Amino acid sequence: MSDKKKVNIVIDTFGGDNGPEVVVRGAVKGLEENSNVTIYLTGHEEELKNLLSQYAYDKDRIRVVNATEEITCHDAPVEAVKKKKDSSLVVALNLVKDGTCDAFISAGSSGAILAGGQFVVGRTRGIKRTPLGVMVPTSGKPSFLLDCGANVDARPEVLVQFARMGSIYMENIEGRKNPTVAIVNIGTEEEKGNALVKETYPLLKACKDINFVGSIEAREIPDGKVDVIVTEAFVGNVIIKLYEGLGKTLLSEIKTSMLSSFKSKVGAILVKKPMKKTLSKFSASNKGGAPLLGLKGLVVKIHGNAKEGEVISAIRQCNEFVQKDVSGKIIEGLIAEEENDKSE
Amino acid sequence: MSDKKKVNIVIDTFGGDNGPEVVVRGAVKGLEENSNVTIYLTGHEEELKNLLSQYAYDKDRIRVVNATEEITCHDAPVEAVKKKKDSSLVVALNLVKDGTCDAFISAGSSGAILAGGQFVVGRTRGIKRTPLGVMVPTSGKPSFLLDCGANVDARPEVLVQFARMGSIYMENIEGRKNPTVAIVNIGTEEEKGNALVKETYPLLKACKDINFVGSIEAREIPDGKVDVIVTEAFVGNVIIKLYEGLGKTLLSEIKTSMLSSFKSKVGAILVKKPMKKTLSKFSASNKGGAPLLGLKGLVVKIHGNAKEGEVISAIRQCNEFVQKDVSGKIIEGLIAEEENDKSE
Repeated sequence: MSDKKKVNIVIDTFGGDNGPEVVVRGAVKGLEENSNVTIYLTGHEEELKNLLSQYAYDKDRIRVVNATEEITCHDAPVEAVKKKKDSSLVVALNLVKDGTCDAFISAGSSGAILAGGQFVVGRTRGIKRTPLGVMVPTSGKPSFLLDCGANVDARPEVLVQFARMGSIYMENIEGRKNPTVAIVNIGTEEEKGNALVKETYPLLKACKDINFVGSIEAREIPDGKVDVIVTEAFVGNVIIKLYEGLGKTLLSEIKTSMLSSFKSKVGAILVKKPMKKTLSKFSASNKGGAPLLGLKGLVVKIHGNAKEGEVISAIRQCNEFVQKDVSGKIIEGLIAEEENDKSE
Repeated sequence: MSDKKKVNIVIDTFGGDNGPEVVVRGAVKGLEENSNVTIYLTGHEEELKNLLSQYAYDKDRIRVVNATEEITCHDAPVEAVKKKKDSSLVVALNLVKDGTCDAFISAGSSGAILAGGQFVVGRTRGIKRTPLGVMVPTSGKPSFLLDCGANVDARPEVLVQFARMGSIYMENIEGRKNPTVAIVNIGTEEEKGNALVKETYPLLKACKDINFVGSIEAREIPDGKVDVIVTEAFVGNVIIKLYEGLGKTLLSEIKTSMLSSFKSKVGAILVKKPMKKTLSKFSASNKGGAPLLGLKGLVVKIHGNAKEGEVISAIRQCNEFVQKDVSGKIIEGLIAEEENDKSE
């Protein structure tokens, strides 16, 4: 692995539901499979050192950075990021800002991560908005849905940038050649949709550097026919949250129904294993985290209830992102955008 | 039942996936349990009479009205409604317009039903938009989601009318006393959301005649904690279509997983019955159709693949709607709206 670039990744150890233990365990294991990576952990120094002392690992490749404050999901995100300068989240983001680290991972408050990404790390010049992309589980390969963040009411030209960034991400991180791109709509015809979609559609169609395939209705999303799905953040947020809520509810109803009689209880035991396999396919946790794209460094949000597997996946994802120079390719994409504009 | 008002319901027999047979069977059975109802069937006269001849029913209470044209889902909705004057759909809507019938049911093209409702039947004076309301299955009681139609980019005052109409509908048709109302949002705090939600929230909060409980995130929708859920049609459409698509995909994946080994196949047989019960709870088909509210008559859209059970439910629903004078109550709601505006 000596031909690989050195990559520094900082992990905010606070804010996850499962505490720093899980993050530390994931970090140590992630280190093993990514030999070019050095990991910085921000949080309570003493606690982190205690946790680390339980493992055998390359001491030079994990560094603990003390942080005395914590941002919780009860804090108002923007305010918290501005005021809690010594929080594990802000300390970590500053390590990306000052160039010490290439990438950031956190299971903390989504709002604070989104706000901190923009205010602390900062946008790449030319990027209008920084979308949060989520890998949506489907019956086929997962699709990359963006924006699922908090930047609502985006303009058409912003959605076009999302399409470009999503394509570059999927091509490089997931290895999808010439990835297909669709826009969320309420019908498949070009003239359908709200004002935003109607304005965005022809812009996407005119892009020479993306493989735009038209509209996608929400009912088709779980089929996994498209690589990149573009939408405005309000709708994106509704989609991922309904995915989560409906999946959980349906499965819990099915479980309850199976435990309703002795006969069905026996049946439940027999179907448990294959069903679990299906469920894990529909769980996003081993797909790494959700990247916030278009920043001067990679910011990755993992689930609040992330276990070590998700931490490991996120480390791998960050490493790939830097190795493949996805940020550099996004900047190249901006040049393609300018050329596209000129030729119109 | 002699104290009940006479109610005339017209059913468009064309456009459903299962053909006029299913509609006719549903109509005959619906007639039996709604002794005050007379049903008009529009479509190919000869074919309908042939189908009817297979049943014993009260001849005075089913009338066939001939229509020579058909609107399919391949027709451009607005154009089709304007040009195909002798289609089963337009002929049926005209029976509502001229006062012959109180309500209309169709399994045909959604677009044509929405367009026809507005252009042929017409809006109630004072109603800004006519929302399509859908009963969304949940782990509790179903919630009434509106607007799921095609009127995208609605204004805040339009959403307030939707909230009023939805409340009146749920109180009268589903018997929910003082129904709770929430607005779809991407967080539960008042300051969250896009421009539309931020403007609408305080207007809903100020309404004295509805029981507004705040924001609902998409992940909470399947819990069934709220009676009426208000949103703009683009988002509403995304929600119901994702509901449908994700439900179908998850269940088909689970089925496939159960058939993956001999052991699990045996298990599948044992859990089949209770699972089916769960699935039927999450199927909207026995909840009647989706009403298009705010028109000078009731227009109900049933699923394209509706079976006779859904036709029967829709007949019951239309009967209730007229008995309880929901249209009259919606007009009273408009007066409450004016008073609300004055007191601001």
